[in-house]
Amino acid sequence: MMTGMLNRLALVVALLVSIPLLASAQTDPLPAWKEGAAKTAIVEFVASVVDSSGPDFVAPEDRIAVFDNDGTLWSEQPIYFQLAFALDRVRAMAPDHPEWKDTEPFSSVLAGYTQGLLASGEKGLLELVVPAHSGMTTDEFAATVSDWLATARHPRFDRPYDQLVYQPQLELLEYLRSNGFKTFIVSGGGVEFMRVYAERAYGIPPEQVVGSSGVVALEERNGTPVLVKQPLVEFVDDGPGKPVGINRFIGRRPILAFGNSDGDLQMLQWTAAGEGPRFMALVHHTDAEREWAYDRQSSIGRLDKALDEAARRGWTIVDMKNDWLDIYPPEN
Amino acid sequence: MMTGMLNRLALVVALLVSIPLLASAQTDPLPAWKEGAAKTAIVEFVASVVDSSGPDFVAPEDRIAVFDNDGTLWSEQPIYFQLAFALDRVRAMAPDHPEWKDTEPFSSVLAGYTQGLLASGEKGLLELVVPAHSGMTTDEFAATVSDWLATARHPRFDRPYDQLVYQPQLELLEYLRSNGFKTFIVSGGGVEFMRVYAERAYGIPPEQVVGSSGVVALEERNGTPVLVKQPLVEFVDDGPGKPVGINRFIGRRPILAFGNSDGDLQMLQWTAAGEGPRFMALVHHTDAEREWAYDRQSSIGRLDKALDEAARRGWTIVDMKNDWLDIYPPEN
Repeated sequence: MMTGMLNRLALVVALLVSIPLLASAQTDPLPAWKEGAAKTAIVEFVASVVDSSGPDFVAPEDRIAVFDNDGTLWSEQPIYFQLAFALDRVRAMAPDHPEWKDTEPFSSVLAGYTQGLLASGEKGLLELVVPAHSGMTTDEFAATVSDWLATARHPRFDRPYDQLVYQPQLELLEYLRSNGFKTFIVSGGGVEFMRVYAERAYGIPPEQVVGSSGVVALEERNGTPVLVKQPLVEFVDDGPGKPVGINRFIGRRPILAFGNSDGDLQMLQWTAAGEGPRFMALVHHTDAEREWAYDRQSSIGRLDKALDEAARRGWTIVDMKNDWLDIYPPEN
Repeated sequence: MMTGMLNRLALVVALLVSIPLLASAQTDPLPAWKEGAAKTAIVEFVASVVDSSGPDFVAPEDRIAVFDNDGTLWSEQPIYFQLAFALDRVRAMAPDHPEWKDTEPFSSVLAGYTQGLLASGEKGLLELVVPAHSGMTTDEFAATVSDWLATARHPRFDRPYDQLVYQPQLELLEYLRSNGFKTFIVSGGGVEFMRVYAERAYGIPPEQVVGSSGVVALEERNGTPVLVKQPLVEFVDDGPGKPVGINRFIGRRPILAFGNSDGDLQMLQWTAAGEGPRFMALVHHTDAEREWAYDRQSSIGRLDKALDEAARRGWTIVDMKNDWLDIYPPEN
């Protein structure tokens, strides 16, 4: 009885202490978003689905939000960041692989011809990164990614790549989670690459990262089971692969989807086709000064069909230049 | 200010109301587990990993627990429950599929010969269930499973199949979650079958269910995108497939793994091979009276090599007859 009362007291005290934190949630949760149509649409959507007495209420377990990664949560120029990783890796590993001189796509990369690879999108990237790491264990690969992120710097901004995440999107992810959403990445990028930094950079744990993958096989090394990467692409989580990936990994339909390119079109259509309230949005890269400006003609992150579809269906189009007050978090 | 005070009051009231619930958590969280070595091992393991000042503390995000389903969370006799579903479905659909009379495995099933199918394990099951549902959308398939669960009854216990879940395991799942664990199913069963009832039956949401799967493809029907089941097995989440599935879907190594058959051996070995505190356990079906007794000679849920390995390595072996006070929840 005494313990019960003490517990009760301790809990009340803990609660009172936490109230300033709760109260601060009433201040603007999206300070890097400029007041305007995009921000208003987000805030109104979230308010409507959490209002348990309103017509658009969505139970917390169904508040599934999916985000593309490259160009939606972090930058993707001048080349996909994972491609920068892959090129660095191929150059570093080349001395141990004399056969690469005569094998595509390695020979082109080593000769400095990367245009073809750039044009082949995330699928081409996989065809480089997957065979390059064949024979490596999943743990070894993760360590390699971690090392690269700790040392490589972006050529334009001279910052580690995982600092070039979008401040407004970090706020949005946190805002959604504080409103009971479960946030997922659904990206054409390699799942084992993203999982290394997604929790630290975005607060998204490995089990909520969906991406492209290579085949792995269980083997025994030194009496210990290990998963070894095989030279085969298993799944390309891009375009029509995104609804397939969502079905496979998440198993229910999102109510919010955010992308930035034609590779996200089917994910947004799949999200839109569900019943009840929905929110579909695209980042439109319009800011050559602070980031990049590209859309219909770009080989990386082409936004053409999806831009037309968004306009036709009234999806939210985020104009990076006008809707975002900040692009990246301050340097730390 | 006034609103702030009212919010504060409302929260305090909500807290006081919830205190009886919190207090009851201090009573035995595992009442269906008999006092003994298995229960003690579970409770001591959980206490050690949540003790933030102890040497075995594990951060909440790394408290990943994986459970096999058939024979570990619910019964699997006299045949896998999903096989009972598949047989019912094949018989019901046969009039629309005259070609099945001459196509294996359908012809054997329709002629009443199911022994071969029983012996072929969860892989054989997939080879029946996947082609049988080819052409159906994922939504249609889920509705079919839901209908079947609502109407079919287990031949021995005359209860809906999804009531034949193990009461001690329901308590264990809840106990783990209340200690910050994230609970996953990692099963050879079909992922789209399990996801229909896993949240209701076990409190495990679809995105935390890992299982075998068939190929699905994105199509458009009546102007709407749908995912259509193809007649191809995509992934068999059994035996060496379990560590592969864990890596693919969860992306980090569990610290607790629970199985009941040789198909779980690699999952337990994979879990055991991580660093830090680990807990591996097997359900041993020893209770012919209240459930079933089977192990080394059973074609369903054979437990032979894993039983030897568990004994050799000191993994916990749960003796169903002696360790579980109840088997199933009371009928509702």
